[in-house]
This record gives sequence, C-alpha cells and structure tokens, in this order.
Amino acid sequence: MGLFSKDIKTLNDLFVHQLKDIYYAEQQIVKALPDMIEKATNAELKAGFRKHLEETKGHVKRVEEVFKMHGVEAKGVDCPAIDGIIKEAKEVAGDVADKTVLDAALIAAAQSVEHYEITKYGTLIAWAKELGRSDCASVLKKNLDEEEMTDQALTKIATSKVNQRAA
Amino acid sequence: MGLFSKDIKTLNDLFVHQLKDIYYAEQQIVKALPDMIEKATNAELKAGFRKHLEETKGHVKRVEEVFKMHGVEAKGVDCPAIDGIIKEAKEVAGDVADKTVLDAALIAAAQSVEHYEITKYGTLIAWAKELGRSDCASVLKKNLDEEEMTDQALTKIATSKVNQRAA
Repeated sequence: MGLFSKDIKTLNDLFVHQLKDIYYAEQQIVKALPDMIEKATNAELKAGFRKHLEETKGHVKRVEEVFKMHGVEAKGVDCPAIDGIIKEAKEVAGDVADKTVLDAALIAAAQSVEHYEITKYGTLIAWAKELGRSDCASVLKKNLDEEEMTDQALTKIATSKVNQRAA
Repeated sequence: MGLFSKDIKTLNDLFVHQLKDIYYAEQQIVKALPDMIEKATNAELKAGFRKHLEETKGHVKRVEEVFKMHGVEAKGVDCPAIDGIIKEAKEVAGDVADKTVLDAALIAAAQSVEHYEITKYGTLIAWAKELGRSDCASVLKKNLDEEEMTDQALTKIATSKVNQRAA
C-alpha cells in the first residue's frame, strides 16, 4: 500500500500497484517453496514443486521486465493476501501428522497460491490491454499460462496419486 | 488451526479442517460485502455484489448442512488467507481516489475472494468423493458453481463496462 492514502488515481496507478503486489507475491513464493519441496513425500509432487520453484524465479524476472517496459522501478508492496495464504499453508502443514495426508494438504495449499496468482495475472492482463500495453500483457500471459499449467498438474497428482493414498 | 499440533491425522481430519476454514471464510465474506456494495458506483456491479451477498448467506447454510451430514459440529477456524485477502481488498479500496478506478479495484479484489473459494471448494469436493461422501460433494458443488458464475459475471462487468471507463 502507499504511504499516503488515495494515491491511486488512474487505472495506470492501479496497474502499477497490482504489478508491485504480484512482484512481492512471487518473491514470497520463491521463499516458501523450498520448505514445501522438503516436506513433500510423493516423488512426483516433490519434482513438481521443484520445477515450479524454477518457473517462479522466471516469473520474478518477467515481472521485472514488465516494470522496465512500463518505465517504472521494480518494487514490491506489502501483500497481506499472499502473506495470509502462505501463513495458512505453513500452519496446516505443521498440523498434519501423516505423510500422505500432508501431501494432500501441501497440494491444497499450493493450489490456493496458484489461484491467487491466476486471478491477479488475469486482472493485470485485462488492465494492460485497456491501457494499450499489449506488449506487457503478452509477457504477463506467459506467467499466467505457467500458473494454470501448474494448477492443472497439481490437480492431476492429487486425484491420480495422493488423495487415494491419503484416504 | 487446532490448539494442539499434529492434530490432523487422516484425510477426513483434513476435510473437516478445510470445511471449518471455508465456513469461517464465507462468514467473513458476508461481513465484507456490504462495504463493497456501498463503495461500488457502477449499477451492475452494485447489483452483482448484492446478489452475491444473498448467495453467500446461502453458502454458509450449505456448509452447515455438510457439517450436519458429516456428523460434525459446525465451527470455523481462523483462516489467515481470507483475512489477508479481505484486508488487502480494504486497503486497496481505501487508496483509490477515482470512482471508476475504484470499481475496477473492487472487481479485482472480489475476484481474489472468488478464486480462493473456487480452489477450496474444488479441493473439498475431491476429498469428499475420496472419502465416499458424494452426498457432501454434491452440496459443496452447488457453492462452487455459484462462485464460478460470480467470477465470470465479474469478468464480464470488468471487460464490458468498468475497465474502459477507468482507462
């Protein structure tokens, strides 16, 4: 959030604010994923998280690219939403005793993260287009596509492997 | 979260925990929506939020129904994720000076809420089925369908009305 109230005056201000929000969120996800990789027991899930950590590092770079294209300094803002989502993920994971149940909990937590990002990128892309920045929209779309693929991959691991073992 | 650590031992425990999480979340959304209705300026958006407030009250009742079907006391648990998402929505809304830009910000915030619920209901339904509770899954599916329809309706209002005026 800004230091001063009412500092968002235009859709462009809102776009930049949301860009800072997702920039912060992606960075927090980079920090959170190693713990999830360590906790996951299903090999496919562990590998999926590892792959997504590398992707997420790429997302940070792409968001930096958009900042640059848009002539704005790359900077994060506090994002209570992603902080809350990650906090909840950690708390639930800490509460689970059984390893296969923990895998199911980790997937659910990761999907909350993915869906948060999917909605934010969806909005950012719509606003970028409205602002005549299709070039920024294209770069953001690459991140959105990878988040959606990750979400689908997690659903597949959950339904084909983890949930049955946990039940 | 539980008072004691490691209190989630089975997929059923995890299901009940997540049910408590969404129960709390739906109640917080019932509390948050009136403020969003008041702030929205686009008539269609205002009406959409009003409709969704009534739906959300119905969601609370459906979750209570699932608790009852599953033989568990209806109770919420702290849900840092939804708290964070709502906190962020309020902060951003408080930062926006222009009314049409505020509508765009409100839609983005509401879609974050919807996506959080969509992922949670998706997981709950998968777990309910795995636990042999297709009856619970059917009730939860009704909430999921309404969340998805709300999300789509918000996208439509954003792209056809609000974003253009805000830009």
